[in-house]
Amino acid sequence: MSTRNLGRYLPILDWLPGYGRSALASDGMAGLIVAIMLVPQGMAYALLAGLPPEVGLYASIVPLVFYGLLGSSRALAVGPVAIVSLMVATTLGEITEAGSAGYLAGAVLLAFLSGAILLGMGLARLGFLVNFLSHPVISGFSSAAALVIGFAQLKHLLGFDIPRSHHITETLAHAARHIGELNQVTFTIAVTSLIILLLFKSRVALALKSFGVGAATADAVGKAGPLMAVLVTTLAVWFLGLDRSAGVAIVADIPAGLPPLTMPSLDLALVQQLLPAAALIAMVGFLESVSVAKSLASKRRQKIDANQELIALGAANIGASMTGGYPVTGGFSRSLVNFTAGAVTPMASIITAALIAVTVLLLTPLLYFLPKATLAAIIVVAVANLIDLKTLREAWVYNKADAASLVATFVAVLSIGVELGIVFGAALSIALYLWRTSRPHMAEVGRVGQTEHFRNVLRHEVQTDPKVLMVRVDESLYFANTAYLEDQLLARVADHPEIDHLVLIMSAVNFIDASALETLETLADRLHDARVTLHFAEVKGPVMDGLERVAFINRLGNGRVFLSTHEAMRELTSAPRVQVA
Amino acid sequence: MSTRNLGRYLPILDWLPGYGRSALASDGMAGLIVAIMLVPQGMAYALLAGLPPEVGLYASIVPLVFYGLLGSSRALAVGPVAIVSLMVATTLGEITEAGSAGYLAGAVLLAFLSGAILLGMGLARLGFLVNFLSHPVISGFSSAAALVIGFAQLKHLLGFDIPRSHHITETLAHAARHIGELNQVTFTIAVTSLIILLLFKSRVALALKSFGVGAATADAVGKAGPLMAVLVTTLAVWFLGLDRSAGVAIVADIPAGLPPLTMPSLDLALVQQLLPAAALIAMVGFLESVSVAKSLASKRRQKIDANQELIALGAANIGASMTGGYPVTGGFSRSLVNFTAGAVTPMASIITAALIAVTVLLLTPLLYFLPKATLAAIIVVAVANLIDLKTLREAWVYNKADAASLVATFVAVLSIGVELGIVFGAALSIALYLWRTSRPHMAEVGRVGQTEHFRNVLRHEVQTDPKVLMVRVDESLYFANTAYLEDQLLARVADHPEIDHLVLIMSAVNFIDASALETLETLADRLHDARVTLHFAEVKGPVMDGLERVAFINRLGNGRVFLSTHEAMRELTSAPRVQVA
Repeated sequence: MSTRNLGRYLPILDWLPGYGRSALASDGMAGLIVAIMLVPQGMAYALLAGLPPEVGLYASIVPLVFYGLLGSSRALAVGPVAIVSLMVATTLGEITEAGSAGYLAGAVLLAFLSGAILLGMGLARLGFLVNFLSHPVISGFSSAAALVIGFAQLKHLLGFDIPRSHHITETLAHAARHIGELNQVTFTIAVTSLIILLLFKSRVALALKSFGVGAATADAVGKAGPLMAVLVTTLAVWFLGLDRSAGVAIVADIPAGLPPLTMPSLDLALVQQLLPAAALIAMVGFLESVSVAKSLASKRRQKIDANQELIALGAANIGASMTGGYPVTGGFSRSLVNFTAGAVTPMASIITAALIAVTVLLLTPLLYFLPKATLAAIIVVAVANLIDLKTLREAWVYNKADAASLVATFVAVLSIGVELGIVFGAALSIALYLWRTSRPHMAEVGRVGQTEHFRNVLRHEVQTDPKVLMVRVDESLYFANTAYLEDQLLARVADHPEIDHLVLIMSAVNFIDASALETLETLADRLHDARVTLHFAEVKGPVMDGLERVAFINRLGNGRVFLSTHEAMRELTSAPRVQVA
Repeated sequence: MSTRNLGRYLPILDWLPGYGRSALASDGMAGLIVAIMLVPQGMAYALLAGLPPEVGLYASIVPLVFYGLLGSSRALAVGPVAIVSLMVATTLGEITEAGSAGYLAGAVLLAFLSGAILLGMGLARLGFLVNFLSHPVISGFSSAAALVIGFAQLKHLLGFDIPRSHHITETLAHAARHIGELNQVTFTIAVTSLIILLLFKSRVALALKSFGVGAATADAVGKAGPLMAVLVTTLAVWFLGLDRSAGVAIVADIPAGLPPLTMPSLDLALVQQLLPAAALIAMVGFLESVSVAKSLASKRRQKIDANQELIALGAANIGASMTGGYPVTGGFSRSLVNFTAGAVTPMASIITAALIAVTVLLLTPLLYFLPKATLAAIIVVAVANLIDLKTLREAWVYNKADAASLVATFVAVLSIGVELGIVFGAALSIALYLWRTSRPHMAEVGRVGQTEHFRNVLRHEVQTDPKVLMVRVDESLYFANTAYLEDQLLARVADHPEIDHLVLIMSAVNFIDASALETLETLADRLHDARVTLHFAEVKGPVMDGLERVAFINRLGNGRVFLSTHEAMRELTSAPRVQVA
């Protein structure tokens, strides 16, 4: 196998040979910035998933290296992400208690299973499956998941326990009833963190630039909001002893040392129980990852290979499962940071991984006093970006069916849960598509002036012939719309008792399946009985090939196939009335 | 409400007022012939369903009357049918023992539930759902079900017990291993019955006609095969005492008297358990019924209202559940007999019902010595018609995807069972449709001579402009094909680095959903970066309306929408190269 061919499966061979000092400088800076962002985010998402904070760090080492070796995106930053963490929490929350050994083992097994599924799909070249999630469904899903995730942070922000629920109203009602238990110090820390994060997000880079700081430096500092929030609140808790005096929940002891080697449990009953959720985690994770990878690649004219991405993410997740981690994928905001900070190759990710490894080896004592409220604030600010009203507004104006599937997915996620919610949304969008194609638009057409153009009689001033009815069928003909087609055409013929010819204009018919073919034959027979001849015009090449294979035209009796509508009009208008036996 | 409106829900009001003597004569003859056919068939199908033979007769009285009052078909003959009986057997066989009281109660409940589902679907006007079963799926299902049904008769034909299995090979292997237990007398009766049935089916009518007997009489006698087989074999068993001397299994005691009034059990756990099967029985039954009703109605220029059919079949099944019956539907061969024997109104069915009522009241002693082998032979001959190789042959020539879904459904029914088999087939045919539409055909087109016609450059001798690439997209654009569309178009543009304009010809695009709209915007941006302007031509009215609502064209930059491909070619060819910033 040549390097070129091998490069298809090992994209690293494409970029490593020419790797130089300037690329290393760029990647180094990006890798550092992402590491600084990833340490608190990784811990925060692990808490969201119901796991100890170090699991989020473990999931940010080996998976990044594996993705770096195999991924086709140059700038994707892999690691724990919010939605996947939420899905892990809801899956495992149903089978065992958060904090138990079984819970951790379940997370490792989920990583392994979704990794295996991704890898299998990649080898089977099933990347196209992700196309069956429509944009409105993804938008509704993301918005609802963001709300569920955000409200799950309420207990950390307020400092008292609120039972986990995906019903936002329950969470809010519980919080309101127990508001007397508010830990004011925790709440103050949360609010401070939120203010720091929002300031850095919206103002700091702009302010620095206005003071003459270079754009690159200003942007880099602008990304340091989470680091700054962590720094300020950790120091406050430490110096003021707020964990003891005020009961502020902190991260506390994180075991120092590299991630443990873990083996996913092969308990068959558990595998069977987790498999559907693992498949959904794999699909949703792949979707998030491949969308961000594609949008970044297109900015630099690079290509993403969806099947290679499946393989790389599969390997990353299997890597996570071998090193005490949990399911990972390419994160949206993190990858954007990586990209804008200058990452030019996956080396940036490998550098991030090395820095996180150093953190878990040496720096965990520094995180002892980090308040959980700060991590919760980081999550809230991160997921706020996922709430997407723009797509709803546009879909509402453009196409009510898309808006309906967006809203239905949103409501389903909030009412029946994230996993069933997205399945429901996907099924609904497919059902709406089938419904639409099962009732094709049909237009009676006439000739525009003395041209060769034929248009809808209802929309244009056109000429028609009383003996010839011309109907354009605006849909491919397949089993779900054959009955509708037959009913509609017979009704139109009944409305025009004077006609001798019905011409079906097939310019928009891209295929005719066997069910529809049978229906067309029946239709021709029934029209023949009613002394009307069925003709076709503008049949496409591939459709005509199929009809010729079964000698369909011979079964039409006097019916013909015309190259153009114009030709049909000319021939049938001048023709004497065809006598039908 | 006027009679006309009421007539929509009570079709009997359409025909009863003008009902006269000649109609009664026609209907009376048809009703008699169907009754003669239905007595042995009803008992045979009840045995197939694992029920006592009288249940098949009970299901042939009240349901026929209810359908007669409500149905929109003039010639449909409702009652027990083979496939539905098989589905009842497989459903109940999984939860209880054939012959137990629970089994009978389960059959009554299945009739009630499928009746309620049909009625509900009719009131909700969901008749269109049946269109989602494609012809090839139905054909594969019927052929496989016929095999399962036929082989289930082997035990009656051979006279020794063979455990029920839907794996034909198991049934055959068991029969072969135990062939020593063959009851030769039973086997002789079976073969005799088969010979009588086949002779009547193929020869008798022809022979009578050649002897100068009137066609109508000859045809009527030709339908009497089952009656003749019953007569000959019953008399043989009776006179020779074969039930005692040779152990020939007979129908034996059938309780005399009208059907008992029954109440379907409302045991919630059982309802839940039977509901999915009841829904499938309802769908399959409705499908069989409405196909035969439609094909008969079209022969006489009558209309079938699918939703009214749902209501009528729903009432018929609820009627069956109230009178000790089991699920019924309109049968194919029986309806054809009814039609050809001259039925002009549902009065024929009501007459059949009255004759069956007389049979269960008075004539059951005559059926005491009827051998089960004869009933099995009647089933085998009836289901042999369901084996349909013609559709497979045609689909194979016409469209391999249709052939594949036929074969897959056939194999699925034989390997995973009738119910899951048809669900699998339906899902597969929808998946194949989605797969096909997710990879649209695209053709680069050029101008045919000096005409205004544009055709595929690969199929026709055409002129093109090196600066203008014209691509016709042969599919509506929706979420599942947007990624493919984008990849394909970008690849084609990359193959033609010299072009300035890409024109998408939209004559075959019947709608563009929100996901595709977003993709077109991204595509326009990316093409703009590559110094190519994106244009559209021949956008359909309804599609253009949507694009205008969101001012899509304004976002195209220099891109335009042309009325025709010809106009696009003319304008862009003469235009100077558009400068892109």
